[in-house]
Amino acid sequence: MSRSIHLNLFIHGRGHHEAGWRHPGATRKALTDVSYFADLARRAEAGRFDSIFFADSLELGDGARYVASGALEPLTTLAALARETSHIGLIATASTTYTEPFNLARQFASLDHISGGRVGWNIVTSWVGGAAPNFGYDRTPEHSERYARADEFVEVVKALWDSWADDAIIDDVTSGRFLNRGRVRRIDWKGRFYSVAGPLNLPRSPQGRPVLVQAGSSATGKAFAARHAEAVFTAHLTKASAADFYAELKQATIAAGRRADEVVILPGLSAAIGSTDAEGQALLEELNGLTDIDVGLSRLSNRFGGHDFSTLPLDQPLSRDDFPDPSTVQAAQSRAVVITDLVARERPTLRTLLRQLAGARGHFALAGSPERIADVIEDWTESRAADGFNIMPPVLPAQLDIFVDHVIPVLQKRGIFRREYAADTLRGHYGLTRPVNPHFHS
Amino acid sequence: MSRSIHLNLFIHGRGHHEAGWRHPGATRKALTDVSYFADLARRAEAGRFDSIFFADSLELGDGARYVASGALEPLTTLAALARETSHIGLIATASTTYTEPFNLARQFASLDHISGGRVGWNIVTSWVGGAAPNFGYDRTPEHSERYARADEFVEVVKALWDSWADDAIIDDVTSGRFLNRGRVRRIDWKGRFYSVAGPLNLPRSPQGRPVLVQAGSSATGKAFAARHAEAVFTAHLTKASAADFYAELKQATIAAGRRADEVVILPGLSAAIGSTDAEGQALLEELNGLTDIDVGLSRLSNRFGGHDFSTLPLDQPLSRDDFPDPSTVQAAQSRAVVITDLVARERPTLRTLLRQLAGARGHFALAGSPERIADVIEDWTESRAADGFNIMPPVLPAQLDIFVDHVIPVLQKRGIFRREYAADTLRGHYGLTRPVNPHFHS
Ligand SMILES: Cc1cc2nc3c(=O)[nH]c(=O)nc-3n(C[C@H](O)[C@H](O)[C@H](O)COP(=O)(O)O)c2cc1C
Ligand SMILES: Cc1cc2nc3c(=O)[nH]c(=O)nc-3n(C[C@H](O)[C@H](O)[C@H](O)COP(=O)(O)O)c2cc1C
Repeated sequence: MSRSIHLNLFIHGRGHHEAGWRHPGATRKALTDVSYFADLARRAEAGRFDSIFFADSLELGDGARYVASGALEPLTTLAALARETSHIGLIATASTTYTEPFNLARQFASLDHISGGRVGWNIVTSWVGGAAPNFGYDRTPEHSERYARADEFVEVVKALWDSWADDAIIDDVTSGRFLNRGRVRRIDWKGRFYSVAGPLNLPRSPQGRPVLVQAGSSATGKAFAARHAEAVFTAHLTKASAADFYAELKQATIAAGRRADEVVILPGLSAAIGSTDAEGQALLEELNGLTDIDVGLSRLSNRFGGHDFSTLPLDQPLSRDDFPDPSTVQAAQSRAVVITDLVARERPTLRTLLRQLAGARGHFALAGSPERIADVIEDWTESRAADGFNIMPPVLPAQLDIFVDHVIPVLQKRGIFRREYAADTLRGHYGLTRPVNPHFHS
Repeated sequence: MSRSIHLNLFIHGRGHHEAGWRHPGATRKALTDVSYFADLARRAEAGRFDSIFFADSLELGDGARYVASGALEPLTTLAALARETSHIGLIATASTTYTEPFNLARQFASLDHISGGRVGWNIVTSWVGGAAPNFGYDRTPEHSERYARADEFVEVVKALWDSWADDAIIDDVTSGRFLNRGRVRRIDWKGRFYSVAGPLNLPRSPQGRPVLVQAGSSATGKAFAARHAEAVFTAHLTKASAADFYAELKQATIAAGRRADEVVILPGLSAAIGSTDAEGQALLEELNGLTDIDVGLSRLSNRFGGHDFSTLPLDQPLSRDDFPDPSTVQAAQSRAVVITDLVARERPTLRTLLRQLAGARGHFALAGSPERIADVIEDWTESRAADGFNIMPPVLPAQLDIFVDHVIPVLQKRGIFRREYAADTLRGHYGLTRPVNPHFHS
């Protein structure tokens, strides 16, 4: 029997392709208009997606000049969308580097209550350089320091989520007893970075704990995922690289004392879909034709901690030597490795590389008919390169509609994707169990 | 002509009376069930209230044992309610002591976009002692230190809200230019407490700036309000005290270089309403009969920074000497003054005092017919003791329904309250103008 797959919709501006917003298939609504996002969420729910996801960056990037950006904040947005949807999971990104664990634990627990158990937290350490000066730092804390904080941060947050027994509320009008204080505990955390007394000031949430999602892929990032993550987003340009990552992370998860199925691995997939392969290809070329070299250069530079690539020739094959050593990159190390590996392997020109990255910023990009997209999805999951995909439509909403109307029915016919929701919570959709509360026996 | 008044609904658990949750008129829904709050918001909107408001405390208080508490977080809750309502203002409390200005500015701006310009921020410095240890502090920063931080915090937040010109977004698909970077500025704030580069990562919000609300009433608190607040919540046990406060704050606002009508003053009013005065009185007595002495003692102790009142006799007249000097109280100084003044004036027994405070925690409490409630509202506003009221129903939703169905029509008939909304934003309802952006000329 074939494996059933998981699909997350990554919502990003007016589409993931850098020039997607300029395409006629893109919405003309403002990115501050929540009705646009509500509409996407409802379409994804109609397509039976497991979840939708908002990324987040704590700075206004340089790209904003030429790319539709400057958008709503994820937690407030998903709270608004929670009431417009009934089943789909809602994943918000939030940073461990620039927030307080008590505030973060509380907002996510609140959102889990509001949505009836549909929330996930994409844990990030915020690699973008522009965030630090918005929070009193001269520069971004080092990669290893960020992950050390993140590790402790997540432990604190879990302890806060577990600070109420599921049965703590008595709510007895007759006796006047509301809360069983013996079923609520302080956490009295005193660690290297955080000191938090607790308890949290709201009851344990429907999922017990919101689903922990992560997308780091440096060695440190993968070790972190193996310990904590219940779903992992990851970027690969080839199936082989995805399969390596998959095997390595499942193994590391087992080594960390968890089961392999306690982590759902979702590589990114940006599909330019047409009714035929040729039409899909034409769409991608149309989009590439709308990109801007300067935007691409500035984004590439960002990935490599500010390195200047603008002096390189545009139309000669690149080599690995044209790039700084990725291990010296403090920002997004793993993405830097993906890019330099690609350069070493394929020797693209700078122009070709920028276009390739414009499509999906280092994620797998594909153009073709619905059947072809479904084939790739099935092939990667059957080959244990993925448990499903993080779907990144190049143009929104047009390419989401085509995915829902034409790719999902193919997956359903093949028996690898749900026709109806079988669960009401994000944990349910991902096949994850509700964590027992280690501090309270029932 | 009579003055038109403003009404804010203060939503608090299952009602403001300490024992309200035990009354048959209280909801039986869980406090984590957002549909309960959505229902209240819609009822308030049907009654044409200016706004609804959620208070917030960053700890789980001791009272939780006997009082319905442990509730959703205000920003996520109001984001959910934004989509269930279309006109009513949405005021969330957030702390300047335990959050980062960038995160707070952003979530409020996001919510202002999501709600189409209906958001207010109740600025608090968090007086409850239990918050500090949830954020790495041994104890609550001193009163003056908290207000000094708050002052700078608010300046930073305003600067972030003003970091985009209203016309910064070009969104020109043809030229590929999305943002006019010249109409977005860094704020480069370097102050005593905060260093924040900016700009914010989302466009200026519909109201320009969310409405600034405040409820401090120490001398420092009032000076802060005079500088920053556009609406003020305040607690008074007598009309005379409210009138003094009103005159003082309007004067201080003028002295701070603003107009008197740039601040809307809303004292709290908790009305136990029956079809006759006797019925209202009976309801209040019924509620008082459901209170618990221990809950009252623990709350009173909290107001006085942990002072122990449990050794005092319950049924003998109190005197001022039974209380610590309010000026030594680091928590909520002004409320401590209100209480000791009451004791000096009325010499109540401890039992009577606790019952009086149980009704509305030091706010004006009243029992009677709809006409009587309307009379008080009109009298206080005509006498310049108030610009309107912060309505605190003792039992929710029953007493809100009665207020909407029976008090509001009386106010409308008297021509002092709107029959239909005349504006779409909270600024519009409160008669406040949209702040011009000082950094950009149109
Ligand atoms: C699909 C996907 C989404 C991501 N979303 C965010 C995000 O919203 N905010 C962020 O700061 N980083 C985001 N990241 C970056 C990762 O959190 C991580 O920093 C990056 O993959 C580099 O890994 P490393 O930190 O282990 O070197 C994302 C990565 C992926 C693959
Ligand atoms: C109606 C009203 C609502 C309030 N809501 C909150 C709140 O949600 N959170 C909080 O920490 N303080 C709240 N306060 C307390 C005030 O912010 C302030 O701390 C208190 O009035 C004492 O004033 P002072 O700080 O100037 O001494 C509220 C006060 C009033 C009158």
